[in-house]
Amino acid sequence: MEEASYHRDSEVPVGLPRNRIEALVDGIFAVAMTILVLDLHVPELGPEASNARLLSALESLVPRALSFVSGFVILGTFWVGHHFQFNYIRRSNRAILWINIVFLLAISFLPFVVALIGTYGAMPVTCILYGTTLLVPMTCLLVQWLYAAGPSRRLVGDTLPPEVFAGLRNRVLMGMIGYGGGLLLALVAPRASLICYATTPLLYLQPARFDRHVRVDR
Amino acid sequence: MEEASYHRDSEVPVGLPRNRIEALVDGIFAVAMTILVLDLHVPELGPEASNARLLSALESLVPRALSFVSGFVILGTFWVGHHFQFNYIRRSNRAILWINIVFLLAISFLPFVVALIGTYGAMPVTCILYGTTLLVPMTCLLVQWLYAAGPSRRLVGDTLPPEVFAGLRNRVLMGMIGYGGGLLLALVAPRASLICYATTPLLYLQPARFDRHVRVDR
Amino acid sequence: MEEASYHRDSEVPVGLPRNRIEALVDGIFAVAMTILVLDLHVPELGPEASNARLLSALESLVPRALSFVSGFVILGTFWVGHHFQFNYIRRSNRAILWINIVFLLAISFLPFVVALIGTYGAMPVTCILYGTTLLVPMTCLLVQWLYAAGPSRRLVGDTLPPEVFAGLRNRVLMGMIGYGGGLLLALVAPRASLICYATTPLLYLQPARFDRHVRVDR
Amino acid sequence: MEEASYHRDSEVPVGLPRNRIEALVDGIFAVAMTILVLDLHVPELGPEASNARLLSALESLVPRALSFVSGFVILGTFWVGHHFQFNYIRRSNRAILWINIVFLLAISFLPFVVALIGTYGAMPVTCILYGTTLLVPMTCLLVQWLYAAGPSRRLVGDTLPPEVFAGLRNRVLMGMIGYGGGLLLALVAPRASLICYATTPLLYLQPARFDRHVRVDR
Repeated sequence: MEEASYHRDSEVPVGLPRNRIEALVDGIFAVAMTILVLDLHVPELGPEASNARLLSALESLVPRALSFVSGFVILGTFWVGHHFQFNYIRRSNRAILWINIVFLLAISFLPFVVALIGTYGAMPVTCILYGTTLLVPMTCLLVQWLYAAGPSRRLVGDTLPPEVFAGLRNRVLMGMIGYGGGLLLALVAPRASLICYATTPLLYLQPARFDRHVRVDR
Repeated sequence: MEEASYHRDSEVPVGLPRNRIEALVDGIFAVAMTILVLDLHVPELGPEASNARLLSALESLVPRALSFVSGFVILGTFWVGHHFQFNYIRRSNRAILWINIVFLLAISFLPFVVALIGTYGAMPVTCILYGTTLLVPMTCLLVQWLYAAGPSRRLVGDTLPPEVFAGLRNRVLMGMIGYGGGLLLALVAPRASLICYATTPLLYLQPARFDRHVRVDR
Repeated sequence: MEEASYHRDSEVPVGLPRNRIEALVDGIFAVAMTILVLDLHVPELGPEASNARLLSALESLVPRALSFVSGFVILGTFWVGHHFQFNYIRRSNRAILWINIVFLLAISFLPFVVALIGTYGAMPVTCILYGTTLLVPMTCLLVQWLYAAGPSRRLVGDTLPPEVFAGLRNRVLMGMIGYGGGLLLALVAPRASLICYATTPLLYLQPARFDRHVRVDR
Repeated sequence: MEEASYHRDSEVPVGLPRNRIEALVDGIFAVAMTILVLDLHVPELGPEASNARLLSALESLVPRALSFVSGFVILGTFWVGHHFQFNYIRRSNRAILWINIVFLLAISFLPFVVALIGTYGAMPVTCILYGTTLLVPMTCLLVQWLYAAGPSRRLVGDTLPPEVFAGLRNRVLMGMIGYGGGLLLALVAPRASLICYATTPLLYLQPARFDRHVRVDR
């Protein structure tokens, strides 16, 4: 996995191995996705609560639960996007490190925004904050991909098919359009804005044309 | 570890490496299993509390502690189930990614349900919610296994012994029967339902017939 | 890393790879060690608090901070112990999986006990609970090592030097004596019991005789 | 990845593999960086809050948010520093284990200090605590690097260019000067002290001379 390449005249590896960035990214996603649930508080009805009262208390948690599900899936698609890019990025460098720190900063901020949406629902201020927070990691993914796999192919192999480069770029742009569209709706129709954020990840359910390059070769 | 296979005419790896899915899965399980303990609150008796009062306060935490232990072991068996399947699934694809996102969504929701059981114990509504939440990841494991290792053997090696395919499928079905049985009991006998959920993982203590395929070859 | 060995007549790997157990273990330790800090609450003095009042409020947190430091180091030594054993255990099986689930259950319970000690300090009931909780993972480490590396050498290489087997076993026994001794003291001298728990990890600072087998070979 | 070297006369690996230390480090950083957000509490205004009131409540969270961002970036640079050192450290031993336990203890304590700064802002006592907590992991990184890569080159390859040794050492010293300078300011100008802590990580944005050794070799 180290896949270190070496200078011809020494044994020192050149370029940072990507595996530790992946480990930090996977770890932060794992924590961020799981602590979303901490916003679902057990209703406090006293231990003598009846079945009916507990049921209605749980029903009042449904908006928070929807916010949890939606936030979880959104985080999942960000993780998949990062996953796909690092499937091709072979080595990292200082620029990649800092792009990922900003990316992860936004990811780790999302649980707060998801809890805010779960509490206050669709309001202009919550929807603007949500949309802005979603555009930051999308922008990071775009910058990372253009930087690593763009014309100069800094950090990917020379043989990366152009179709894969364009395909992954377009997948990021698709998300930016979805979240950006939601952000534009935030002031005039907050509810539609939220729906826009929640449905954007579903766009990624459709297979990509470049998937034939990542299919299992049997 | 990358174990990438390459197109004959390029150096681009085909199929997504499974190691990052494993990393996210392991991370989410680690967080979900550990934050279960956050529902065990230190009793607030003031710093001057006597030994006897603290002891009785801790005794009143026993139902929560049992819920913690039971939830931890249930999560552990889900993790083992995933572990066994990925021991044979060699590459992932878009379908596997989405199956795993739904799987992990249910896993990360479980700490809320475990806390609910710890607070309210055996009631129809809590037991129905618990059983339903347990059946979701079980269903995901079943779908994943049939999809990856079923007749077309999409994502496993051609030489997977049929006994291993059937064995892992039956282990999942065993859990579905256990949790499904508990769910049927939830309305009429919630206490029996909880016992059913808590004892189902113990079924996995018995060795499986396919274990001889996963024994250490010395 | 997969280091799978194969049946002569098939491509199916035998034995479970140990790397995913390590990943779950490392993840649970990382979460358990880090959430210890959640018991250190920021004092609530209002934003206008003077420097002197905040300082004295922080001073009153010192017992909790000591409990945090001590719990962190104790968890660290458990992690090192597991680390050393898995440095030699080459494959896992169903028994190893279950030993590790019980091991991790105790590890993830420790943050609750550490918070309890941080709140109530040295009392018979807290010290008995602490000692008991510390003996569970120690016992798991002992059982795992005897099972994997004992006379039949089930899961380690045939060439494991007897000195390493005995050395790692003795290191576990050393910890059991330390925590067991603290447990015996709990009823009669709770304060001495706590000191015993906190100093036991320092025993591991001394180099082990088998360290020459794990030295860097340059 | 195991990259184990073996004694000539046995199959037992010598030296501890570094990958598990990396896994624990990455896990603790992932948790510490993500739980920083738990200090950003959703304002409690009741579900009927107006957009304007929510906006002003969120504005009052800005100091906490800045503390979150600054703490996240500081943790990120510590992680990068560790990442770079372990890019060259090939094996670990007992000393490295303990240096890392102290390092991680300080890292996992940082979320408490960041929450304290977020609540009370620039005060002598908060700034002294912050600076002291920042100097501990920096000192650990310095000790680790001098121990592993210093004149005797205990744990790095013999061919490590002197420029890389000096470069990584100087990067750590740069951080110590930044955080140490902030600590000196804490008593006389707490606000300047905080600015000093927050801007020190930005020093790492500049490329290092040794980066040419870690560039991607294409």
